[in-house]
Amino acid sequence: MRYSRFLIPTLREDPGEAEVVSHRLMLRAGMTRKLAAGIYTYLPLGLRIMNKMIRIVREEMERIGAQELLMPAVQPDELWQESGRWDLYGKELLRFKDRHGREFCIGPTHEEVITDLMRREIRSYRQLPITLYQIQTKFRDEIRPRFGLMRGREFLMKDAYSFGRDEEDARETYKSMHDAYTRIFNRCGLKFRAVEADTGLIGGTFSHEFMVMADTGEEAVVSCGSCEYAANMERAESKVNDGGTKSEKEEERNRVDTPGVKSVEEVSAFLGVRSDKLVKTLIYKTDTGPVAVLVRGDHEANEVRLKNLISANELMLSDQEAIEKITGGPSGFSGPVGLRGIRIVADHAVGQLSNFIVGGNEKDVHLVNVNIGRDFKVDQFSYIRKVLAGDPCPKCGSPLSIDRGIEVGQLFILGKKYSEPMSAKFLNKKGEEAFFFMGCYGIGIGRTIAAAVEQNHDKDGIVWPIPLAPFHVQVIPLNVNNEKVMITSELIYGSLLGVGIDVLIDDRDERPGVKFKDADLIGTPYHVIVGEKNLNEGFVEFKDRRTRELKKVTVEEIIDHLKGLFNRRRR
Amino acid sequence: MRYSRFLIPTLREDPGEAEVVSHRLMLRAGMTRKLAAGIYTYLPLGLRIMNKMIRIVREEMERIGAQELLMPAVQPDELWQESGRWDLYGKELLRFKDRHGREFCIGPTHEEVITDLMRREIRSYRQLPITLYQIQTKFRDEIRPRFGLMRGREFLMKDAYSFGRDEEDARETYKSMHDAYTRIFNRCGLKFRAVEADTGLIGGTFSHEFMVMADTGEEAVVSCGSCEYAANMERAESKVNDGGTKSEKEEERNRVDTPGVKSVEEVSAFLGVRSDKLVKTLIYKTDTGPVAVLVRGDHEANEVRLKNLISANELMLSDQEAIEKITGGPSGFSGPVGLRGIRIVADHAVGQLSNFIVGGNEKDVHLVNVNIGRDFKVDQFSYIRKVLAGDPCPKCGSPLSIDRGIEVGQLFILGKKYSEPMSAKFLNKKGEEAFFFMGCYGIGIGRTIAAAVEQNHDKDGIVWPIPLAPFHVQVIPLNVNNEKVMITSELIYGSLLGVGIDVLIDDRDERPGVKFKDADLIGTPYHVIVGEKNLNEGFVEFKDRRTRELKKVTVEEIIDHLKGLFNRRRR
Repeated sequence: MRYSRFLIPTLREDPGEAEVVSHRLMLRAGMTRKLAAGIYTYLPLGLRIMNKMIRIVREEMERIGAQELLMPAVQPDELWQESGRWDLYGKELLRFKDRHGREFCIGPTHEEVITDLMRREIRSYRQLPITLYQIQTKFRDEIRPRFGLMRGREFLMKDAYSFGRDEEDARETYKSMHDAYTRIFNRCGLKFRAVEADTGLIGGTFSHEFMVMADTGEEAVVSCGSCEYAANMERAESKVNDGGTKSEKEEERNRVDTPGVKSVEEVSAFLGVRSDKLVKTLIYKTDTGPVAVLVRGDHEANEVRLKNLISANELMLSDQEAIEKITGGPSGFSGPVGLRGIRIVADHAVGQLSNFIVGGNEKDVHLVNVNIGRDFKVDQFSYIRKVLAGDPCPKCGSPLSIDRGIEVGQLFILGKKYSEPMSAKFLNKKGEEAFFFMGCYGIGIGRTIAAAVEQNHDKDGIVWPIPLAPFHVQVIPLNVNNEKVMITSELIYGSLLGVGIDVLIDDRDERPGVKFKDADLIGTPYHVIVGEKNLNEGFVEFKDRRTRELKKVTVEEIIDHLKGLFNRRRR
Repeated sequence: MRYSRFLIPTLREDPGEAEVVSHRLMLRAGMTRKLAAGIYTYLPLGLRIMNKMIRIVREEMERIGAQELLMPAVQPDELWQESGRWDLYGKELLRFKDRHGREFCIGPTHEEVITDLMRREIRSYRQLPITLYQIQTKFRDEIRPRFGLMRGREFLMKDAYSFGRDEEDARETYKSMHDAYTRIFNRCGLKFRAVEADTGLIGGTFSHEFMVMADTGEEAVVSCGSCEYAANMERAESKVNDGGTKSEKEEERNRVDTPGVKSVEEVSAFLGVRSDKLVKTLIYKTDTGPVAVLVRGDHEANEVRLKNLISANELMLSDQEAIEKITGGPSGFSGPVGLRGIRIVADHAVGQLSNFIVGGNEKDVHLVNVNIGRDFKVDQFSYIRKVLAGDPCPKCGSPLSIDRGIEVGQLFILGKKYSEPMSAKFLNKKGEEAFFFMGCYGIGIGRTIAAAVEQNHDKDGIVWPIPLAPFHVQVIPLNVNNEKVMITSELIYGSLLGVGIDVLIDDRDERPGVKFKDADLIGTPYHVIVGEKNLNEGFVEFKDRRTRELKKVTVEEIIDHLKGLFNRRRR
């Protein structure tokens, strides 16, 4: 491709709208442009990257026998009524009426559509298992779209759905999909981890997220350095210490005045004790009634685990008024002692404490030397806190670490979550009707590209992993008006194009500084710089974008070197 | 591909919902399924066909230097307000509000979005001309979606937009696009015509439609057998005969009683004259006031030409009440004599008549021997009728013919229709601001595929043109339990796959009849039938789907023949 004939509107300045590196760099490199909040155009350079990713995804889906189809973006409400999600899904489901007043949505996901298709087309166990996938535009009306492609409203996804005879089929497909995802992200040249995850709104019983590791990632990834355990923060737990510390003698409970002292930090400073001697009491409002949640002072409640524990669809901290009504005291002074008519659940770590400190359910009052059993009862103990770095691994006990990641893919075993309510059945070997056992598997295409940028950039721009790079090699003639420079540049350009390497020749009549800056910004992995001075000595310069290493080489050497490099990559 | 592992749910029966051949056959061949009115899923086989078409389109767009990008489906109302189309576009524009109450639409076309992009990114004439295109999902909320992919609501389009410095740039791009479209439809193996067309809602000054010729086509295509003239019915005209017949002596005008006699047929039968001695008077309601339209009795008014003539956005026949108010008489008896306060426009052919018959603006009354000038005045003569087969070509005078076609692509010169209201400017050579001179160019991907089926089928199913065929060759082992049959079948399958021919092997344990029926239905161009009896004599059978010719050949012959065939096609 010739730069002069390709629309790459690079920006010198950081655009104001961009909050994260990938968003900023993709705008600056002329790869994307915003049309509306969370809605982006892929410019030609951005589309090239997306198409490289799509090709990798397609090849790996085909390798595991998944069949590509294309379902519509616009979906009728009837199917969502059948699955029950029309009511469950909140405002993220963009709904509208057509000209005849019929209700539709723009699909954020396609479980209903594919389940409807399969219940019509598949009759017999002999046709199972089957996996179908599509690469398609989705819409999720995020309340606060941000970070460019990372959390957009309109986005491109690869979504696959498997239909099996039973759980064994589903687990086998799940495994082959897990392997395919591993190959996909490896082939994209990304550092990533597959972690256990919660199943959320999609539902089902079992899930993994694929996380691209990056310091700027939105998600906390908990993992063990000694064994294979890894989970996202919502799902993660650590080894529970059962027994031990409880041997401490129960002291007499006291009421202490703590005027204006509310937070864990304030209370522990005021009373001169460590925060792990405190227990926080959080009053939650849920669709299954209010609940009091106890976690240690230095711990944080894990609301996803909590939600699952009490089978709630919605859960939020209560407001001042509700807290006063339930506890009798203002917020900041809640405690479990004397609470009536509310379920009390406590984190396992609270169960290990003796003589701890809690709020007194009264303004400016705390209670010290509180003990479970003697002073109050806990309805249920569970692991409902967020893991801390250094906590023991639930599998092997080694210290856990916490890193940041960007979720780019997720696998779910759905079981009969959709097939049962939608009555999607086949005839099994015995001739009986049985529900499909399903799985679903997504990859955010745009999001993976953004994650790749978060993981691969420096102060000057993007450093594309070679498989995703829009161009592999950029030929940079320093002076387009010098005949010798241009003949050599064209020779290199033509030779590399001829063997299927993606080359961009910067044939613009621009200063060398402008060309270098643009080449670094758009992140082409290899630059070949052709200048008169070096050429007179028989050389061109070769730059590795990632290492920034610059070498003088002959034209023949560089052509051979690049041919060899890409030939090896293809093998 | 192995048939047993590929979802091809063929149907034996004609589905009730299908009104046209392409819709029926694509449903029966397991290529598409309906999700909702005008909204279809492409099953794996259908998607393969679509991807073949897309590849051809991409190659030809790239060949003329068009750059691919991808714009969003969801578009904010602001841009449509700027262009003025938010109000102009009717209910076909699907509008909705997002969760924050902001107005959006699902784009039926992208002039606004691309013009907005270009006015931000292009500064100088040096960057022009530029052409961008995308292959993207569109939505048009048709009042009566029908005919499957032919007139769907959600559909895939290739839409290209060119930005030039001036009309010359636009005309050059238009020409190269015209050539590219010609190559595309030729490469798809279709019989088609490029015809002059009206510009409609997209607007602009100049347009061509590409029509795939098929007896079942929705559009009438007018063309000359002697010269290159071709136009769609909306646009078409014939040579106007000026002078000649008017020499007839003007007879005395008479009032005749015609009780209950209204239609042209009735009046001409009742009075015993040919229908071309009658003049129909049509009273139209338009947004620029009412208008009386005169066409010869054997002619039909061309409402598109009429709309353009009087610069109306909306135009419809008046109802009874309005007719009575304007003419003083009931509908069926309108005439131009004595009409007041309404503009009268007449077709050129009316201008050639003397002593003709019109309605009397009174129940059961007609006037005979009416003459223009003496009896009433015409405000404007124009070509406002539909062409009839045999009318003289406007260019060479030879008789015109009328055939049926399916519109699959359209080219427009838009000029400044969008750049002016949206203030989309660049700096020209003199350093002055100038508006982009635009063009736009669409191809309906799904519609072309449906048109290909309309043009290429027989009683047993589809007969794909080779470039669009989902598979080129179908290997049909007659008995999958016979080892010799399967070894030979697999040998042929593997040999052809190895040289890049798309082969489907029907490895299902089904009766030969079922396999033959399915192969004919899905329309694979070449079938290789492997049966034990022929094999014992050293032969397999080779069937050409189009000619239905069946030959006995050796395995070596058939592999060589097919390799040669597809090698030649690729050259």
